[in-house]
Amino acid sequence: MHKVEEVDVMENLIEANRRLAEDVRRLLEDHGIKGIEVMGSIGSGKTALVEELIKRNPDVSFAVLAGDVVSDYDEERYRKLNVPVVGLNTGRECHLDAHLVEHGLEHLSEEVDLNDVDVLFVENVGNLVCPTDFPLGMHERVLVVSATEGEDVIPKHPAIVKAADVIVVNKIDLAEACGVDVDALVEAAEEINPSADVFAVSVKTGEGLEGLERRLLG
Amino acid sequence: MHKVEEVDVMENLIEANRRLAEDVRRLLEDHGIKGIEVMGSIGSGKTALVEELIKRNPDVSFAVLAGDVVSDYDEERYRKLNVPVVGLNTGRECHLDAHLVEHGLEHLSEEVDLNDVDVLFVENVGNLVCPTDFPLGMHERVLVVSATEGEDVIPKHPAIVKAADVIVVNKIDLAEACGVDVDALVEAAEEINPSADVFAVSVKTGEGLEGLERRLLG
Repeated sequence: MHKVEEVDVMENLIEANRRLAEDVRRLLEDHGIKGIEVMGSIGSGKTALVEELIKRNPDVSFAVLAGDVVSDYDEERYRKLNVPVVGLNTGRECHLDAHLVEHGLEHLSEEVDLNDVDVLFVENVGNLVCPTDFPLGMHERVLVVSATEGEDVIPKHPAIVKAADVIVVNKIDLAEACGVDVDALVEAAEEINPSADVFAVSVKTGEGLEGLERRLLG
Repeated sequence: MHKVEEVDVMENLIEANRRLAEDVRRLLEDHGIKGIEVMGSIGSGKTALVEELIKRNPDVSFAVLAGDVVSDYDEERYRKLNVPVVGLNTGRECHLDAHLVEHGLEHLSEEVDLNDVDVLFVENVGNLVCPTDFPLGMHERVLVVSATEGEDVIPKHPAIVKAADVIVVNKIDLAEACGVDVDALVEAAEEINPSADVFAVSVKTGEGLEGLERRLLG
C-alpha cells in the first residue's frame, strides 16, 4: 500500500522536476550561461575537479552552486577561489532538484550579474543513486567516479552511468595501490553508455585533464 | 505542495519500517542470531570487510543478506565463501528496508536452518544518506568509511554517523597517499557520535581488525 502511494508521489516529483528543469535551462540560455552538473559519490573528487578546472581557466567567468546534505564545506572551498558561489543544502534529501537550483540562481544573481557568467557548475550531493532521475536543466551531466571505489562501481550503478554525458574516472594515480584496472573501468563505462565521453584523469597530478577540459569548456 | 505530501508519505514509511524492524529483531532473537547491519558508501570496503571477518572466524556460522540497487556482484562474492547468502535488490531505492530483510530471511531459511546461524550480516546499499532512517532490526549498525573518501566524509554525513553503533575507518594504508589524516577522521567520528566505538583499520593489511572483531563477534 505504501509502495503504490510512494511510486505515485515519486512520479509526480519527477515530472514536476522535469518542468522546472526546462525553466532553469531557459534561464541559463537567456543569460548565455553553459550549465554543467557534476555528480558522483562522496570522495570521488567532484569539488577538487571543479576547483582545478576553475584554476586552470582564469579567462573564463565561473559561478558555482554547491550542493550538500547539511554542511557548507564545499561552499567555503569555492569561496576561497573568489568565484561567486551559493550553497544548497538538501536537508535529508540525497539529491538536488531543479527547484533548489532555481532558488540558487536567484541568490547567485544577488552576488553577480548572471549575464557576466560564462560557465555554471552545479555540484550535486555525493550519491550514485538518487540524482539520476532529477536532472537540473544543465547542458552537461558529468559523472565522477574514483578508481579507489573499485572496478565494480560502474556496473553497479548503470542508471546514473546512462544518465551522464561525460564520465570521469578520477584518481588514476591511486589505481595500482587499490589493485584497480583503469582500462576496465573505462571500458565498463563505454559499454553501459556508448554515447558518453569517458576520461581517465588524476585531478591531483593533472594527468588527462586537458582532454576533459576541451570537452567541457572548449 | 509536493513537499508536504512527500513528507507525509516519508513519515508513514519510516514508521511502518520501524514496526517491521521490531518483527525482524524478534525473529533473530527467536533463532539466537546476532544481526549486524553494514552501511557505507560505494567502495568503502563493506563487502571486503565482511568477507574478511567471515574468513578469519571459521568456527562461527555466518549468513549474509547482500543489498544492492540492481546487481548481484556482492552476492556472488559471498557465495564463493560458501556462506548462505541471499541478494536483495532495491530497484531504484537507495536503501534496504525491514520489509526486504524479512523477505530475505524467508529465502535464507530455504538455504539454511536459521537455528544454525550465529551471525547474520546485512550489507546495505552503498549510500551515506538514505539508510539512516531505515534501521533493519539488527543488533548493531556498523558504518564503514574509507580514508580515501577524504577528511570531510564524517562531518558531511552527521545523521548516519549518529545512527551507527560502530564506525570503521577503512583503507588506512592508503591514507597517506590521499593526504588524509586518519586521527582527524577518528576524532570527527567520536565528536559527532560519542557513544559509538570507532576503529581505524585496513581490511587489506589486517591492521586494526582484531579490535573490531572482538567488538562485533567477541
